[in-house]
This record gives sequence, C-alpha cells and structure tokens, in this order.
Amino acid sequence: MTKDVHQICLDARAAARAIATRTTGEKNAVLARIAEGLEKNAPQILAANEKDVARAKEKGLAAAMIDRLALDTKRLAGVAAAVREIAALPDPVGDIVSKETRPNGLVVTRVRVPLGVIAMIYESRPNVTADASALALKAGNAIVLRGGSEALASNLALGAVIRDALVASRFPENAVQILETTDREAMVALLRESELVDLAIPRGGEALIRFVTENARVPVVQHYRGVCHLYVDAGFAAEEAARIVVDSKLARPSACNALECLLVSRAAAPSVLPAIVTALLAGGAELRADEESRTLLEKSAVPRGQHGKLVAAAQGDFGQEFLAPILAVKIVNDLDEALAHVARYGSGHTEAILTPNAAHAARFRAEVDAACVVVNASTRFHDGGELGLGAEIGIATSRLHWRGPMGLESLTTMKWVVDGEGQVRG
Amino acid sequence: MTKDVHQICLDARAAARAIATRTTGEKNAVLARIAEGLEKNAPQILAANEKDVARAKEKGLAAAMIDRLALDTKRLAGVAAAVREIAALPDPVGDIVSKETRPNGLVVTRVRVPLGVIAMIYESRPNVTADASALALKAGNAIVLRGGSEALASNLALGAVIRDALVASRFPENAVQILETTDREAMVALLRESELVDLAIPRGGEALIRFVTENARVPVVQHYRGVCHLYVDAGFAAEEAARIVVDSKLARPSACNALECLLVSRAAAPSVLPAIVTALLAGGAELRADEESRTLLEKSAVPRGQHGKLVAAAQGDFGQEFLAPILAVKIVNDLDEALAHVARYGSGHTEAILTPNAAHAARFRAEVDAACVVVNASTRFHDGGELGLGAEIGIATSRLHWRGPMGLESLTTMKWVVDGEGQVRG
Repeated sequence: MTKDVHQICLDARAAARAIATRTTGEKNAVLARIAEGLEKNAPQILAANEKDVARAKEKGLAAAMIDRLALDTKRLAGVAAAVREIAALPDPVGDIVSKETRPNGLVVTRVRVPLGVIAMIYESRPNVTADASALALKAGNAIVLRGGSEALASNLALGAVIRDALVASRFPENAVQILETTDREAMVALLRESELVDLAIPRGGEALIRFVTENARVPVVQHYRGVCHLYVDAGFAAEEAARIVVDSKLARPSACNALECLLVSRAAAPSVLPAIVTALLAGGAELRADEESRTLLEKSAVPRGQHGKLVAAAQGDFGQEFLAPILAVKIVNDLDEALAHVARYGSGHTEAILTPNAAHAARFRAEVDAACVVVNASTRFHDGGELGLGAEIGIATSRLHWRGPMGLESLTTMKWVVDGEGQVRG
Repeated sequence: MTKDVHQICLDARAAARAIATRTTGEKNAVLARIAEGLEKNAPQILAANEKDVARAKEKGLAAAMIDRLALDTKRLAGVAAAVREIAALPDPVGDIVSKETRPNGLVVTRVRVPLGVIAMIYESRPNVTADASALALKAGNAIVLRGGSEALASNLALGAVIRDALVASRFPENAVQILETTDREAMVALLRESELVDLAIPRGGEALIRFVTENARVPVVQHYRGVCHLYVDAGFAAEEAARIVVDSKLARPSACNALECLLVSRAAAPSVLPAIVTALLAGGAELRADEESRTLLEKSAVPRGQHGKLVAAAQGDFGQEFLAPILAVKIVNDLDEALAHVARYGSGHTEAILTPNAAHAARFRAEVDAACVVVNASTRFHDGGELGLGAEIGIATSRLHWRGPMGLESLTTMKWVVDGEGQVRG
C-alpha cells in the first residue's frame, strides 16, 4: 500500500505550510530527537543496511559502491553527529535581507522564509537521507527523498526514525517522506509536480543529473562535473606550489573539488614544474602532460622510477573529470592563455590561481566564471564546511537561485513585507 | 537569412562572457547611447510600429491590445527616459554579499556577478524590448528577446537601435538579440538551450506562462496570477479602510497587484463595510458579495442607484483574478478564517491586512505565504518602482531564485572567492 506520488506532494505541501513558522527551538528539538533516534535504533537501521549490502553483493556491485552503501556503528554515530551539528547552526529563517524606509514612509523589508517543498534525488549513500532531511527541516521545509534502489531498506529504516521524531515533536509526519518505489516513473512523476515541489536537488553521477534536468518541470539545482584547474603564475614559490597542487589533486581524488588540470606559466615552468611533478609522482599520480612539459621535465632532475607515471596527454585529457589520481598538465603562455583554457574546458565548479601578483589575482577573480574562484590555496576548500556553511546539501554549478555549496540559506527564499500607516498609491 | 536559435544562443553566451566584466561606466554609456538612438531614430521606429498597428487592425485585434501595441512620440520618449533611469540605478555587479575570515585565515567572499544569458518571452508591449534589454545590460547580461508576432516590426526596429548603440560602444552586438521568427518552434528551441540560457522570463497571460513552463528545460521565473486579498480587521477606521480599498481595487484594475477579494472581520463589518462599499460603488465597482455582507448592507445606509452594482457572489468568484473593476466581498469570523481563506484562494502574489492590532499584523506577516505581504497600505505598492528597485523586468510569484519584483539584483548570481596564503586542506 504505497501512497501515490501526487498525494505525497500534496501532503508535503501541507506539512511545509505547517512547519514554516515553527521556531528555531522547536526545529532544533526535532533534530535532537532524530539524532537520538538514530542512536537508539541503531540495531534496526544496521540490520536493514545489511540486507541492502547483501543484495548489492548478490548483484555484483563494485566494491566502491558497496563501501558507499555500507553503514556500521561508527558511521551511524557520524550521521547522528552531523544532525546535531545542523541543529547547532544559525537558523536563516527570519533573517532580514534588506530594510528600507521609502520616501512615503512605507517600511520595505525583505525577510528570509522557507523555500517550501524540496525533492532530493540521490544515489547510494544512506547518510544523505539524514543530512538532507535535517537541513531541510532546519530551514523550515518539507522534503521528499528518492534514494537509490540499492539503499531502499536503509533509507526506509532511517525514514522511520525521522518520522517518529517528527511525531514525538508534534511536527507533521509528512515533513519528511521517502518514496517507497525507486522506479523511474515515480521519480519523473515527482519531478513534474511543478505546483507542489519548489526545488529538485539531484546528487549523483552526471547521467542522473541529466536525466533529472531533462524530465523535470520543477526547478533543478545542477551539479554536473568538477573539471577544476589550477594555474601556477610566474614568481610563485616552487615548494609551496607543490604542496598546494598535491593537496588539490591527491588528498581525495574522487571529490568534485579535486584538481583535474594543472596549467603552468611558461616563465614559471623551469623553476616550479620539476618540484610539482616530483611531489605528484611521489604521491602516485599519473600525469598526462603536453609535449612542452615533457621536454622540460626530461631535461630537469625529476627522479625516475617513482610510484606514479608521466605520459603524453591526449587532446581528450583536457576538460576531463578523472575522479582518480590522474592529472592533465599543460604549459601556457601567460595568464591570458590560462583564462582562455579555463573558459573553454572548465565546468564552472572550482578554478584556482597561485600567484604573487595582485593584479593577476584580481583579473583571475573577476574574469573566471565559476561557482568558486580560489587564490593561493587548495581547490579542496570549495566545500560547505570549509567555506563556513557548517553543512551542505550539495554544490550548485548552475547559476540560478544558488551557486556553490548549498547550506541552510540556499534552502530559503524571501518574502517582501511592506508596513504602512494608511498609504495609498493613487 | 535568419540565424538558427542554437547559433543565437552560442553568440549570446560569448557576448555574456565578454560583457560580464565591463565597468558600470561602460555599461551606462551603452544605455545613454540606446536612449539617444531611440530619440534620433523615432521616425523609423514609429513607421515600423505603424505597420504593426495596421496589421493588428486588419486582423481585428481588440482595441485594448492595439493600444498596448501602439507607440507615439510621447510614449517613445517615455521608453528612452526609462532606459536613462536604469542607467542611473546602482550597479549590483561586484556587490559583496558576505565576507568572512575563516579560522585558517582564508578570506571567503561572496560577490555578485551577472547571471549570464536571459531569454525574455513576452507579448505585445514593445516598450518591454527596450526595458528588458537595458536591465539585462546594466546587470552585465546578454539577452535574447522573443516578443509577440503582432509587434515584430516594432521590436526589430528597436533592436536595430540597440545593436547600433552596442557597436558604437564597442560592446558585442550579440549582447541583445531579437528572434526574427515568432513561431512557437523557435521559442521552444530557445527554451531548451539549458547549457546556454540561464533564465527564461515569460511575461504575459497565464496561457503563455504555462506554455513556457511546460516546454522549458531552462529555469523559468513565473508569474501566473495576482489573486490579491485585503483583510479588514476589527478596530480599523472605516474612512481610511475605504480609501485604501478603493486605491487597491480601482486605481488600475487591470494590474496584477489590484485587489480581487475583500475580507472583513465580522466584528468590524457593521462599522466599516458600509463606508467601503459606498466608496467602491461610487467609483463604479461591481461587488460580488457573500450573503452575510449583503444582509448587513441592506440594513445599513448604503446609498442605492450609484454607478456600480452589488450582486450575490458565486463560489467561483473567490480565487478569481478579475483584472476589472469587480471585487469579491466576504465576511469572515476572524484573522484565522482570513488566513485560511488567503491560503486556499491566494496566488502568492500580494496579500494585505488593515489592522490596528500589532499581534494580528505580526501573525499576518509571518503566516501568509506570498511574494509580498502588506500591512496597513494599498496592495498596489507591490511594484519594483514603489519598493525601491527603480525598475522591474517582471514580478515573480515562484519561489526559486527570486520572489517579488525583479530589479537589477534579480538578474545577477554570485561567485565565491577564496583568498589564501598557501593554505591546504590536508
């Protein structure tokens, strides 16, 4: 007996109306109950997760996928801790965006209010179920979650805990709903509810995001790819550059903010490229370098026989998101060529420059069109936690509504409030 | 020889990149040249408009439609003046949304940047061509305009003036492009360019907006209907209520912020309703009132035989956007019933309360879910100019990205800028 998707959305809208005006204290109490529930009900959640994992193994899913899917006591404690961290964040609802008294005496205020109903479409990690629910609730929203079929038992177990916490806190239980069917028809039905759903957030591979965009009639916040570049300008210290590039590429190669292409200014290359490449090879990276870089490196003292390898770049290596310890490397004339390369091959996610030159930094900041531009630091800082949001429901590379890491503020909209004393327009 | 829509969008994207970093002075110079061009080329523009008007008359278009379409010297001077007013507005690009130094010393700034490429879909008024182009350019965006077929000659003449001003200012001429074909296939092609178009703004009747929403793969800012309510609470002075209601309903009944339904608290009705109704009837309104209101008015001293008329409301009159001097009238128990009525029948546009009670005003502000909530003033203040934006490209009743009157800030997005001194995440 599953509810149909339209009814789920109607119920979500009604719940959103009911919780939009709940106080910060009331919302935090729900989140505290969810965190407690995750701990108290750990045996049931882990048992459900074991079923998912067993089914995934039977199906022959890749080990990396199974690792993403699997929960254990420690991971579940981490999920509960994340919910408590969200409770501790400031509530954006009620924040005043602007306030102005007009010449006729009207006081015009723009105030942050909850967005309404969010549809979250995601793949295997079950922690997203709790994170996204907590973020949505904290910002006063209702949420409908559609996770991957491989995590359905885990997600339903997490959903039951969340529902109990809502009910115990006298919140409408339909504030968080999990689709019990993971077929594409149900997802498409959800994405077409343009009168009831305010925003769809897809999180997963590019194919999922393209499917959601193609089929949605509701607004979609997109995050296609992170083809991140880092340009080393003339005059930047070689050892520091090596340290930053290694962090950007190798700290977590599968992350969307990991570096995919290193650009080095021709003037800087002889002094910085050998040190950077030595460090990357020592860290096990595969470097796909253009001819000029390879010629330069052959002449220089880069040690051979290290863990990584240095090969010739193919044209397709530029603009590629490797999501692996692989890096494209290219020498460019100067800042202009670096900017042109980023404009052509970048995906609007994270772009970085290392430079001692303030004018070059200023041009890079102004001219690069990306969600996040980084000067003299690692690309890996493009992350909600690192940028001060506390937690994120995703990163948006699309321009509309929000761009970059999506924290609580991204789950709100605003309302204009006009206070008068009998004014008419005439 | 018309360019195909995909090429138009590619050219718009290239133009958007090129103008995103132009200074406020450079952008204002373009707008000054456009305003001058509108004046200098008035004969050509008016001749093109005459052709459109003649064709519209042949086709038997309604007089109101022809009035919306027609330009004359005075109206054209008004269009030029509006462009100069937009030049005088502050430029939102470069504004700092937030700035924070993280514990690790990273300086994280969110800065306003142009949105990119805007698709404007609109009906007959040719002034929108100039207004929308000026707003898009001022915020550093490129725009593709698809006006109504009945205004094509006028729009192309305006487009030629804008193109000349762009070229004379060394801006890319493709920053403003007008679709030369007004068939639906071209519009749909434009609305599907999700990689190249950042936002579609439809402006026109509900059918047009629904068509755009249904067919778009790009984000759409929507403005369906303005079913605006005004609730008169107990204790509000009768004469002042009458003055505000008359302004809200009769100053411009065809506007989207005009009042469509008057709700009166049962406690207030005997003292305020006769005065309000007398004033509305004197102004020629047709009142469609519920039984309780009519019974009360029959007993009171409302003068008969005035210009307007008082009839029984049908159920369908509640929730209707009359866009005419017609008003639904209903007595409600109290604030709770008024809030429930607004939640059920409102369209999320403009909702007003007249009350001397601060607690009731606070509840109305907090609980009403609309783009604009008005306390003790006319609904007609929900307008970009009146709320301090200077000019608007439309009003959004959708929640995402923007809500309410869309001025320059609504045509921007933001970029995260991270400034470091060699930090790595580790």
